[in-house]
Amino acid sequence: MAEPAAQGGKRKREEEEEEEEAVEGAEAASVGNGTAGPARFPFTGFRLQKVLRESARDKTLFLHGKVNESSGDGQDAVVILEKTPFQVDEVAQLLAGNPELRLRLSNDVYSNYQLAPPPQLSGVKATVVFPATAKHLQKYGRQELHMVEESGEDYTNITLPYLEAQSLSIQWVYNILDKKAEAERIIYENPDPSDGFILLPDLKWDQKQLEDLYLIAICHRRGIKSLRDLTAEHLPLLRNIQREGQEAILQRYGVGPDRLRVYLHYQPSYYHLHVHFTALGHEAPGTGVERAHLLAEVIENLQLAPRHYQCRTLRYALRADDPLLACFRAAAGS
Amino acid sequence: MAEPAAQGGKRKREEEEEEEEAVEGAEAASVGNGTAGPARFPFTGFRLQKVLRESARDKTLFLHGKVNESSGDGQDAVVILEKTPFQVDEVAQLLAGNPELRLRLSNDVYSNYQLAPPPQLSGVKATVVFPATAKHLQKYGRQELHMVEESGEDYTNITLPYLEAQSLSIQWVYNILDKKAEAERIIYENPDPSDGFILLPDLKWDQKQLEDLYLIAICHRRGIKSLRDLTAEHLPLLRNIQREGQEAILQRYGVGPDRLRVYLHYQPSYYHLHVHFTALGHEAPGTGVERAHLLAEVIENLQLAPRHYQCRTLRYALRADDPLLACFRAAAGS
Repeated sequence: MAEPAAQGGKRKREEEEEEEEAVEGAEAASVGNGTAGPARFPFTGFRLQKVLRESARDKTLFLHGKVNESSGDGQDAVVILEKTPFQVDEVAQLLAGNPELRLRLSNDVYSNYQLAPPPQLSGVKATVVFPATAKHLQKYGRQELHMVEESGEDYTNITLPYLEAQSLSIQWVYNILDKKAEAERIIYENPDPSDGFILLPDLKWDQKQLEDLYLIAICHRRGIKSLRDLTAEHLPLLRNIQREGQEAILQRYGVGPDRLRVYLHYQPSYYHLHVHFTALGHEAPGTGVERAHLLAEVIENLQLAPRHYQCRTLRYALRADDPLLACFRAAAGS
Repeated sequence: MAEPAAQGGKRKREEEEEEEEAVEGAEAASVGNGTAGPARFPFTGFRLQKVLRESARDKTLFLHGKVNESSGDGQDAVVILEKTPFQVDEVAQLLAGNPELRLRLSNDVYSNYQLAPPPQLSGVKATVVFPATAKHLQKYGRQELHMVEESGEDYTNITLPYLEAQSLSIQWVYNILDKKAEAERIIYENPDPSDGFILLPDLKWDQKQLEDLYLIAICHRRGIKSLRDLTAEHLPLLRNIQREGQEAILQRYGVGPDRLRVYLHYQPSYYHLHVHFTALGHEAPGTGVERAHLLAEVIENLQLAPRHYQCRTLRYALRADDPLLACFRAAAGS
């Protein structure tokens, strides 16, 4: 697998960049098995400085703390906590027995309890970043989003020069296309250098259940940075991805085309054309109207207007600290 | 406020229809305080029949089980489990001490642990529905979603006849427009009968914080069922909603236009034209690309092609039990 360090540039592989994937270290670090023995944090003490982010829905908490204060000024650490999902088998066993309960309310057929689960059902995944730099603290903090309206002209005058100045490395994409990495993960390939692509599971999907099915099609052809580069010339490629990608997912996973959301991101996380396939019932990050563009609609737009994506205004959200947002503001002010 | 019962028809007011509201019974039952003593479930035994729904992201589990089987055939029960969100103070205390850890992996500045929290940090909210009816089981079950491709012709031949046969009551909308209900909740009004609208907070938003800001603009003009009815004739109305709605939200809440997602739903929940305003950082239900249409893009589409929404294919997801899906399937089979 491509190492984060090898990617370079600001925009990174989707799997590491999504907001809920801010737990980058956690993902990288969770590859090993869980057989290790008792351990300690790589620091002593923890004095809370700031809640960087929290989600009552996701049951996650991102904390910035001062540690090692007994020996001088102390250092910074980030601790990310996430409750673990339920394991159905263990829960069923628990309910069949006599779990420890406290009644909170009872009304007609409904009753509500506080349940104290046994330790094996109450695990927490803890990720530590230590020592944490200012960049880590910024990265894990919640960032305000701002909507940008990018006309075709804005793309040429603001966005494209910005992207070109980034010299973003997408070597990890080429490694996949050249079978130098992740070859064993490939689900389907159309090897045509112009209109072909490789389909493989997204790293966010553990492939254990179909509920959150997530695959990515990466085109073989180089130089198509994003939606903005697409013209009618690319229709054969796009139709291949749509039709063959759906067919491969049906064959492999038994999930039919009408149960998939097939879309591109704009802005994408990396500037080599790729298409997302997610289970329709899975509200994956980046499926919102301000970022996702249904492939079927992209194809239709190009059929009707070959230069649709060079001409039309596209709208998307940028984090407050995104340098591209600063470029737009500078252009508006000038 | 309009009573659900007064709405009639299948499609309902947004606030009652969203999937995440399925824990309705749970919410109703959790009003009480938590001072009660040890308790037991209102049944004995629990033999798992089916996982009705589960979410690894939300840490929730909806189970259907057979209970009371020792005395006859047994009865049905639904148990809904949800891990509780973290309490910051308790977590900070825990981290300052020596929590029980197992190292899973360590890589550079990142390390990952399995943490065993003390009981007060590992609570689970359990909601029981007992006895559970077939309706409960259906209600709590995850409904598969299916993508529908609706051409302009399909709309005329399938969707429109279906909608007309429903005789959906939208009296509650008229009550708002006529100030017979919710008049005190109105944030802004343009009273023009053709190009005016009323802006008010959505019922999903408790108005206590701006993170999940959610308002709805309802147009005064009657008879515009949805996106499908829009033509260039409606541009003044749409521009008013866009500009005046954003301005009113800036005045009232201090949230600028670039921090809002302004969009229509297709299919909508009720067939009287309305526009959603949500905080850009809030991933509200219905913001996905398969349902939301940015108002700015709708306006642009109508400027370029006055009959865009009568001609183009629109794609959206329907639940497996939606009668409209059956209509599409019947049409495809005929």
